[in-house]
Amino acid sequence: MNTQTTYAIGVDIGGQTTKIGLVDRHGNILSTDIITSNDTTDPHTFSQRLANAIIALIERHTTLDNVTGIGIGAPMGNYYTGCIDGAINLPWCNGQTIPLVRWLKELTGLSAIVTNDANAAAMGEMAYGIAKGMNNFIMVTLGTGVGSGIVVNGKVLYGCDGYAGELGHVIVERHNGRSCGCGRSGCLETYTSARGIERSVREWLTATNLPSLLRQKDIATITSKDIYEAAVKGDKLAKDAFALAGEKLGEAFANFVAFSSLEAIILFGGVTKAKDFFYPSLMEHMEKNLISFWKGKVKVLFSILKESDAAILGASALAWEIKHYIRID
Amino acid sequence: MNTQTTYAIGVDIGGQTTKIGLVDRHGNILSTDIITSNDTTDPHTFSQRLANAIIALIERHTTLDNVTGIGIGAPMGNYYTGCIDGAINLPWCNGQTIPLVRWLKELTGLSAIVTNDANAAAMGEMAYGIAKGMNNFIMVTLGTGVGSGIVVNGKVLYGCDGYAGELGHVIVERHNGRSCGCGRSGCLETYTSARGIERSVREWLTATNLPSLLRQKDIATITSKDIYEAAVKGDKLAKDAFALAGEKLGEAFANFVAFSSLEAIILFGGVTKAKDFFYPSLMEHMEKNLISFWKGKVKVLFSILKESDAAILGASALAWEIKHYIRID
Repeated sequence: MNTQTTYAIGVDIGGQTTKIGLVDRHGNILSTDIITSNDTTDPHTFSQRLANAIIALIERHTTLDNVTGIGIGAPMGNYYTGCIDGAINLPWCNGQTIPLVRWLKELTGLSAIVTNDANAAAMGEMAYGIAKGMNNFIMVTLGTGVGSGIVVNGKVLYGCDGYAGELGHVIVERHNGRSCGCGRSGCLETYTSARGIERSVREWLTATNLPSLLRQKDIATITSKDIYEAAVKGDKLAKDAFALAGEKLGEAFANFVAFSSLEAIILFGGVTKAKDFFYPSLMEHMEKNLISFWKGKVKVLFSILKESDAAILGASALAWEIKHYIRID
Repeated sequence: MNTQTTYAIGVDIGGQTTKIGLVDRHGNILSTDIITSNDTTDPHTFSQRLANAIIALIERHTTLDNVTGIGIGAPMGNYYTGCIDGAINLPWCNGQTIPLVRWLKELTGLSAIVTNDANAAAMGEMAYGIAKGMNNFIMVTLGTGVGSGIVVNGKVLYGCDGYAGELGHVIVERHNGRSCGCGRSGCLETYTSARGIERSVREWLTATNLPSLLRQKDIATITSKDIYEAAVKGDKLAKDAFALAGEKLGEAFANFVAFSSLEAIILFGGVTKAKDFFYPSLMEHMEKNLISFWKGKVKVLFSILKESDAAILGASALAWEIKHYIRID
């Protein structure tokens, strides 16, 4: 650890906005800024804007010398190559490989390191959150999609190419599984993401006559928020959609444990607001499917980081690694 | 690496026999001995016999000073604790936790380290076999059961308790899956081990009228060897049983890749003799189920170590680690 520098920059690149934060070693976010992610198709334009915003943020508080580097969480961010590889939801990336780490180094003079958003979330949880002191855990982000960051022996698992931990796309249903955006069928994400839960409700409203408050809505535009609100009012169909997500998560988690024998699975993301409706089912099905010597031993926890801060904190946690792991400087 | 010592002891504890080998740094087995594993119910008696055999083997060739330590591969061998935890197929263990590493240290004066047999096989493959130079791979042993050793970042993955890598007991069939010895249903092992393949044949011979050379045998006692011989003669039902095993392996392997992004899966064990009959199906189903960016990139290879040597070599490879990782000395 470099004791000379006091701050790190954490950057969270999302589909619509990119959040930037100046973070100290204790995980305090001293200042933040936001730029839009989707108003240019030119990767150089985006990188220049990002570099400008980073420098301006630093100079409002300190000097570049006091900053260890830039940690970036981004969809399809590759830790090994320092590139963003064809993230389809970023218009300036769209199918191309963008060497963002190299460009930011050239534009700011600071070292940088990138990983995908779920890995950054795992780093943040390990540095500042509920996974402090844990060496073997999996972070599962339940949002529009399902992402994951796997930590083994205290380090994020990147695998041979930087893409380890695509647990949202583990196939959990081989018989008439739901088609997935990845081109295959039966992926965990199709049952357990916000969209997956909406899909369960739409399927049931269409294919059955089961009563539900949700029949008052336009079936095509029902959101996971609508479903959550119906569940809060006691709507059985809405509650069953969350329970199905819990069941699929529990079954999948038991298999993950057989793989890496982890201490805990930590859940994060918008869907966790509905935890009362999926957690009992998740635990029941995980326990039922665990090998006997793991029964009762694996914790399923929820992130304790504020959702608005977690992505920046996670990315900044990556920046503290730079002196050890930097690939490009 | 300790350059003072020339040899390591590799011990492979199996259900019937325990093989001991004196191995040099290049993976040459200089001498071997065998003791029985199952003729005593007293763990102290077994340990004393094993220690005596180890010392005798060493003293025939060199002195104890020239031996770095003892590496042991054993069912339910726990790397962290140095114990064998309730291996049901070892009568002197039967449900108990046996501190074999500590006892051997007391009896021989040599440091020792233990892991399960599949992890030892992975170590051997990495030190002396086809996985030389690989940092991310999975070793899958296809024998009576299915075992696995997972290597990430050049090290065996042990997880939080030493039991990571129970991939034979990943549940691959959730609808009417075959019951498994572990108490659950649908485990990979129930379709892809030698016993799993025998089970496919028995199910089909009983439930269908499909023609097969195997109908000449007593259905209850058909072995995987019988099935292999029938397949060699072109028997469709026999070939289909291997193809089903290949299909289940291929589907499961695609999920393993999504977990740890590995360079290769390496197969080992008696069932690999029938590779001509399961490999095409395995590759077809793995490729079909891989996320698009991994298609065409993951190798499935076969061990190049002689089966009779591999377990000893793998265990001995563990012994070279002792100076770095020893937990008990």
